[in-house]
Amino acid sequence: MSKHEAVPANNGNAAPEAKLSRASVQRFSLYLRHLERWNAEGLQVVSSSQLGEALGINDAQVRKDLAYLGNLGQPGIGYYTQELITALRHRLGVDRAWTAVVVGVGNLARALLRYRGFGEQGFKFVALFDADIRKIGQAVEGLTVHAMDDVSSVVRATQAELGVVAVPAENAQSVADSLVAAGIKGILNFAPVTLRLPGAVSLVTVDLAVQLEQLAFLVHLAQNE
Amino acid sequence: MSKHEAVPANNGNAAPEAKLSRASVQRFSLYLRHLERWNAEGLQVVSSSQLGEALGINDAQVRKDLAYLGNLGQPGIGYYTQELITALRHRLGVDRAWTAVVVGVGNLARALLRYRGFGEQGFKFVALFDADIRKIGQAVEGLTVHAMDDVSSVVRATQAELGVVAVPAENAQSVADSLVAAGIKGILNFAPVTLRLPGAVSLVTVDLAVQLEQLAFLVHLAQNE
Repeated sequence: MSKHEAVPANNGNAAPEAKLSRASVQRFSLYLRHLERWNAEGLQVVSSSQLGEALGINDAQVRKDLAYLGNLGQPGIGYYTQELITALRHRLGVDRAWTAVVVGVGNLARALLRYRGFGEQGFKFVALFDADIRKIGQAVEGLTVHAMDDVSSVVRATQAELGVVAVPAENAQSVADSLVAAGIKGILNFAPVTLRLPGAVSLVTVDLAVQLEQLAFLVHLAQNE
Repeated sequence: MSKHEAVPANNGNAAPEAKLSRASVQRFSLYLRHLERWNAEGLQVVSSSQLGEALGINDAQVRKDLAYLGNLGQPGIGYYTQELITALRHRLGVDRAWTAVVVGVGNLARALLRYRGFGEQGFKFVALFDADIRKIGQAVEGLTVHAMDDVSSVVRATQAELGVVAVPAENAQSVADSLVAAGIKGILNFAPVTLRLPGAVSLVTVDLAVQLEQLAFLVHLAQNE
């Protein structure tokens, strides 16, 4: 992660939410996943220790995180599942639709476009781009592949907010620069490079090698301790 | 994450490493990525505050994490980059090769097989499996696609340790069960479901919707605070 990936600086208020860490942001998504599942299973009330156990962290951290959403917990009772979900979705900004474009129409992009989880969470892909002239004009998962020269006009026309960078490492920075110039507000980067972005543009990097490495580490720990 | 994803329980010793959190495990991989880059750039010494800034956490947390590796930091100097890399790679178990199989030969699997970062980090894919009879026997990125019935024999023959689950959500649990029965020690799961695994098998889940949601959240924060 570069420093540009940090949560935006606070606006001068001393509110507790002003210093939300990247780790907290990640936990909010995980809380939401577990709560949605438990809610579907009929669980009306959850405790901070249930959430803590699900995420492998302690109750105190859960309560501290959830305090960011306001005064939701009931001492001795816990949190009302649906109320917590609504508050989290609102706070995460996922109680509205988000539009995204994808640059680099390879295997990863195709996998992403078919991944039904995105639609369920309110994410809508509105355009695709590729530098390969043979792909331009093709329809992939119902979307037309545009030329890189059209990033600016298409992003403006579709009012897309998020951009997914699924190109080789050596092209990722120039693609990101084009997206930023076109007005994209956040980038999900799958290329194994650290992108340099203006502070106002948010960045999440998914390094698949890091994920596999984590797994190796957990297995290594299990075998050696 | 299920409770099965938690770092394995300690062996009864009161050593500080016995209570390594999932979050620390993730940070170790990120420390390693930054250190390798800085080392390539010629940086011979790094401080806990440099690492903290790169990960968006405070120095104290960095020092606490790195203490897990032994007494490496020099007060007033910092950490020797190469020494820290060597210690991290050893502790993470990535100073040796790891073998992995992939189940589900779709777009995501093809993207993973082409992702050069894995080879650089010592991960070697040794076999592919798919339930689709039309894919069985095909060669994909130099590996033959085997039938699901052959998971057990092929995993044993290749002595594969890790399994990547890249199948639709509804098939993920049965695939994971087959991998576990075949002796796989850790699973990297891309299906948006919580897998139930025996405690001895490690699990890392990559939920791509969670990643995009995080990005939306960061953009939302930047726009509203």
